[in-house]
Amino acid sequence: MENTIFQYDIHPDELGRRLYQYRIKAFHAGYLKAAAEENPQSYIHLFRIDYIVRGRGFILADQQVYPVEAGSAVFLPPSALLIPTEEQEELEVYFVNFEISNLPMRQEFLRRMSSLIPQFQVRDTEDQAMKFMLENIFAEASNHQPGGCLIIQNLFSSLLIFMVRQAQKGLAPHSLAPVPVKNTNYLISRAVSYIQLHLQENLSVKGLAQHLGISEIYLYKLFKAHTGQSVQLFILNYRLQIAKDYLSNPDYTVKMIADELGFASPHHFSSIFRKHVGISPTGYRRQLQEQNEMLLNPE
Amino acid sequence: MENTIFQYDIHPDELGRRLYQYRIKAFHAGYLKAAAEENPQSYIHLFRIDYIVRGRGFILADQQVYPVEAGSAVFLPPSALLIPTEEQEELEVYFVNFEISNLPMRQEFLRRMSSLIPQFQVRDTEDQAMKFMLENIFAEASNHQPGGCLIIQNLFSSLLIFMVRQAQKGLAPHSLAPVPVKNTNYLISRAVSYIQLHLQENLSVKGLAQHLGISEIYLYKLFKAHTGQSVQLFILNYRLQIAKDYLSNPDYTVKMIADELGFASPHHFSSIFRKHVGISPTGYRRQLQEQNEMLLNPE
Repeated sequence: MENTIFQYDIHPDELGRRLYQYRIKAFHAGYLKAAAEENPQSYIHLFRIDYIVRGRGFILADQQVYPVEAGSAVFLPPSALLIPTEEQEELEVYFVNFEISNLPMRQEFLRRMSSLIPQFQVRDTEDQAMKFMLENIFAEASNHQPGGCLIIQNLFSSLLIFMVRQAQKGLAPHSLAPVPVKNTNYLISRAVSYIQLHLQENLSVKGLAQHLGISEIYLYKLFKAHTGQSVQLFILNYRLQIAKDYLSNPDYTVKMIADELGFASPHHFSSIFRKHVGISPTGYRRQLQEQNEMLLNPE
Repeated sequence: MENTIFQYDIHPDELGRRLYQYRIKAFHAGYLKAAAEENPQSYIHLFRIDYIVRGRGFILADQQVYPVEAGSAVFLPPSALLIPTEEQEELEVYFVNFEISNLPMRQEFLRRMSSLIPQFQVRDTEDQAMKFMLENIFAEASNHQPGGCLIIQNLFSSLLIFMVRQAQKGLAPHSLAPVPVKNTNYLISRAVSYIQLHLQENLSVKGLAQHLGISEIYLYKLFKAHTGQSVQLFILNYRLQIAKDYLSNPDYTVKMIADELGFASPHHFSSIFRKHVGISPTGYRRQLQEQNEMLLNPE
């Protein structure tokens, strides 16, 4: 009887080390079916991975538009959006919203991902490993079993590694020509992108209309038709949603969040938040933590 | 056309949070087929997960012996061992050696795992999810693709979560009666366990023989037959192997390693290491890092 042993040493590598250091945190996982009138929630995210299950769409990023279709995973930085190709076309996507908790490395992450995946998209292969990962993320997110959150974070960082590998295998387009698009989807997407990029500044409706080359009245109608809200209300809800996302991450202080969202002071941020959400930012954060604990220790 | 969105919030839970804080690092993954004369390497580990693919064995832990069979995953603390049931029986296992990098939480991890998995073992279910994870760990460990190390750490922490879940589902024995065993496997296992538990002290061959209730001559013969080495040499190699494992983890300083292994001073540790390995501990660590970088940037 022969004894056999083989053993692999597990060594850190550059990509793994970086991704670990970024401290990526996924905080929402979801499914979205969107047609002409998109759900405004789908416009509001920090970083996002979209996986297109059905339909064709456009990625709007860096003021360019790139086509994308089913079976692709899309990396969306905070200022980019995914929109349906035609106003009447349906687009079905899995999505995960995430953020880089290691704030000093946030820009580096963005640069690196944009250079690894220049057209913001990679193809899944025949075995659909990426789709499988997303399905497991949703299964864990909906099951509330012990350790589920860490499994999701694990699956999600593995998903990003898979996207980089697919890109390196040539499964990411490198020279897609930007597409000329002229429809209201494109207009509103540019508007949202502008809002995201100027969140820290004193955002005015006038400045936004000028940027888009349309009148303020048309801008108002556009937002009302697409999101059911005025521009002002959309911007406010945008800020509040991002604030809630940040608050769910204990790595951010209230001061950091107020700065990121362009509030004059933490006090100003707190009073606006309390007025519209009905509770202070710290109270909201405590509430989230208590809910989590109840969810996991029901007795 | 109806628009649909569902969205799950991803909240941290207690188990996930703890496992994240422990900073678990897997540093070897392997496969082992062991019969009468085990490979001495299989005795030397910090923490270890064994997955029994074929055969039956005993877990020796806390001076007790528990039976275990194919299809079980075994959690082995540093002082525990897995041995074949019969001296002639073959045992096939996948294993992963790991360590808790967050040293202040090491004892807490040990207590927690021992209370969650009191008999050190859980059953895999029909779909063999745990076996699948280990197979993926080996595939990543042998492929050297970018990010592989992080994928392995992710899979490994997910594996631990699965083990806890299986235990909570009742798939872990809670009242296995310890088994009376009297053979040389058991003797040598108790010896190795004693060595591990007394590494930090001044280990003597005499003390070890007394602990086992055998003569020093019989102890010598036992080690020679099982490991091909004298007891003294086995202990030295044990210390050096653990030292190498620690050195592969940048979280440990040379001083911490010297303390953990019971050397009088970092200087004494360095000179013993240099004498037997041919290079200083810091040199060894640098060499490992350079090898990793070459492996991943071959051009």
